[in-house]
Amino acid sequence: MTTTHTSTADARVRAAGERAHAASRRLALLSRAEKDAALMALADAVVAASDDIVRANASDLRRGAEADMPQSLQDRLRLTSGRVEAIAAALRDLAGLADPVGEVVRGSTLPNGLQIRQVRVPMGVVGMIYEARPNVTVDAAGLGLKSGNAMILRGGSAAADSNAVLVATMRRALEERDLPADAVQLLSGGRDEVTALITARGLVDLVIPRGGADLIRTVVLGATVPVIETGIGNCHVYVDAGADAVMARDIAFNAKTQRPSVCNAAESLLVHRDAAGAVLPGLLADLHDAGVVLDLDARAAAYADRSGTPYRAVTEQAWAAEFHGLEMSVGVLDSLEDAIAHIDRYGTGHTEVIVTEDRARARQFVAQVDAAVVMVNASSRFTDGGEFGFGAEIGISTQKLHARGPMALQELTSTKWVVEGDGQIRR
Amino acid sequence: MTTTHTSTADARVRAAGERAHAASRRLALLSRAEKDAALMALADAVVAASDDIVRANASDLRRGAEADMPQSLQDRLRLTSGRVEAIAAALRDLAGLADPVGEVVRGSTLPNGLQIRQVRVPMGVVGMIYEARPNVTVDAAGLGLKSGNAMILRGGSAAADSNAVLVATMRRALEERDLPADAVQLLSGGRDEVTALITARGLVDLVIPRGGADLIRTVVLGATVPVIETGIGNCHVYVDAGADAVMARDIAFNAKTQRPSVCNAAESLLVHRDAAGAVLPGLLADLHDAGVVLDLDARAAAYADRSGTPYRAVTEQAWAAEFHGLEMSVGVLDSLEDAIAHIDRYGTGHTEVIVTEDRARARQFVAQVDAAVVMVNASSRFTDGGEFGFGAEIGISTQKLHARGPMALQELTSTKWVVEGDGQIRR
Repeated sequence: MTTTHTSTADARVRAAGERAHAASRRLALLSRAEKDAALMALADAVVAASDDIVRANASDLRRGAEADMPQSLQDRLRLTSGRVEAIAAALRDLAGLADPVGEVVRGSTLPNGLQIRQVRVPMGVVGMIYEARPNVTVDAAGLGLKSGNAMILRGGSAAADSNAVLVATMRRALEERDLPADAVQLLSGGRDEVTALITARGLVDLVIPRGGADLIRTVVLGATVPVIETGIGNCHVYVDAGADAVMARDIAFNAKTQRPSVCNAAESLLVHRDAAGAVLPGLLADLHDAGVVLDLDARAAAYADRSGTPYRAVTEQAWAAEFHGLEMSVGVLDSLEDAIAHIDRYGTGHTEVIVTEDRARARQFVAQVDAAVVMVNASSRFTDGGEFGFGAEIGISTQKLHARGPMALQELTSTKWVVEGDGQIRR
Repeated sequence: MTTTHTSTADARVRAAGERAHAASRRLALLSRAEKDAALMALADAVVAASDDIVRANASDLRRGAEADMPQSLQDRLRLTSGRVEAIAAALRDLAGLADPVGEVVRGSTLPNGLQIRQVRVPMGVVGMIYEARPNVTVDAAGLGLKSGNAMILRGGSAAADSNAVLVATMRRALEERDLPADAVQLLSGGRDEVTALITARGLVDLVIPRGGADLIRTVVLGATVPVIETGIGNCHVYVDAGADAVMARDIAFNAKTQRPSVCNAAESLLVHRDAAGAVLPGLLADLHDAGVVLDLDARAAAYADRSGTPYRAVTEQAWAAEFHGLEMSVGVLDSLEDAIAHIDRYGTGHTEVIVTEDRARARQFVAQVDAAVVMVNASSRFTDGGEFGFGAEIGISTQKLHARGPMALQELTSTKWVVEGDGQIRR
């Protein structure tokens, strides 16, 4: 990266930021009806451009295949006319959701007669940096439009052609409705553009990285604009003494295997020594049969040895890992306190589960475990904007500032205090 | 700054962070009654140590005088037994406020029977970086205790002796109640400690800089932990066509002169051309008589010329300045839209005021001006946690993420989703 490159990227991103800022001022004033009509128009435009989109996607896929992109990534990248329909349907669903902008959060009349109220307003300009899946491009544009924000998108180069056609389609549809095309912009330059975007203070109000741990780390460490971290999940299931053994096995098995590639899947199973005999032999065998590689501590291994279930010895790396696949670390502990300490050490603050029949210990776990979501007797897989009833999800925040847990439209807003008086001055 | 220094600072801050983290786990579980009793004990301890505190402060003041510290700063630094009483009274006031921790923000029962609720929890470990005034040390400790957070404080070197005695006093009082002394820690090393603090990811959950623009800029640009920016205020008063001239003069005069050193004082006056004749001649003379240096554009200058009020020509720097004193930039504009554009260009997103009798234009100003607080017919000086009825103020956030406007106890909390089920798994 040369200085010239950087300056060019800076200038490009700055220009995009200024256009986005201008667009955001208009978006902030749109009524819900106008935004919903625009979302429906975007959906129609995406469907109408389906052939172009699939063709551009085919070129991305060809490039991916030539570069030996793993099959699973190619699958995530692939668009079919059916998938394009689904992307458009998601835009239509957004139109059905309540508008977060204008919601009055709180308010009061002060003793001096001033009326104050805190009202939700758009963030302004939101940058989103993400990886392969082109549906995120449309989702992000729709979420931005509904919440009154101008979006600057930076998708992965693997989906460059798909993203270009999707964004051009949406920009045209906006223009046809006399709405600012710059509500959605796509950056398609190199890494220096990412750097420029995450340091564009005064132009970009928020950056949301969506992707793997490396992407998120790069953004968080390099950003000078506010960031919301999403989605690193080293989630634990702790089975307490006296837990219902069947429930414990169902929850642990579901949390690990129902969709192992996502951030709310469980990576670690911790079992109280008094529950281990009832739970582990069957569960370890079930997990193994489902293809799960088991990383066991010595006490868990004793149960596997008895039933002849294969395993390997757990390592520090395994305790700390988000496997994104069929692998699970398992340990036997002496107490609830040990489980909480283990989670405090290795957890990523995403979702932590206790399975217990004991009311006091459930309360203690809920109070002492520091995570975005703490669950009693439920699968970690429920940490999800859709499951929580939000109707849309931008990601799952694992930071404590502004948003924690599943993020939806509300989390794309800020607030503004409106103060109305009749000439009050301070004495 | 040598590598050795940096490593030492890193190690010191890391150790402080680990102690703070351990303390925060205990603080998070305290009941409101326990926290309020501790606040009363801290207040008593501060009063009991009054002589020691005033003595240490005298040594800070002596050092300041030797270093030719400006008189206004010496005044802010000075502690008397009366001021120590006031500091203790602020702690007692905190005991009277509601506990933000445990508040249920929202919740629902999902179709599958899962009960979900979003509950306020402490942030954990909060760093605060501030300048001369030693009362901030006690305020911050009290706010942290009430909101269940462990505080790592980094005060200005000018108040080093005062801060050391204040923190030692509070730590002793906590220990005597069997509470963790590490709920309040003071860093007193060099700049490299600030750097270590604002990059202590995983140990520090939030950093709040309180002070001048340089301090805030340094922290925001250097931090990798989340930051809340506070308090840069280039606040405008816009007098609309047809505004009540008396009200306009009262509000503009109050906003500029009632306490010109603070962030919610007005720095700029914008007047619609149709209001200028009724408002400016008297107001400019009043401001001048109150000692305000006037930076006027040509159209405003025409009014000053007629009445012989002295002024200078406004500059780009003056439009952009937060004067922190008796100086004001003044311009005459053709329209509300021009005023909004001016504020969009020069404002810092703190507090913006319109004086108007017109309902539609008030609504337009409120909708289109992007600031933490937008006021109609009231002095900007009301942007204040105390005035808003919050009972305590940490600062005034001018960022959009997490907190915007006056920040109080609630803004020192995060949330946690608690999910309770009876064995639900995802299908």
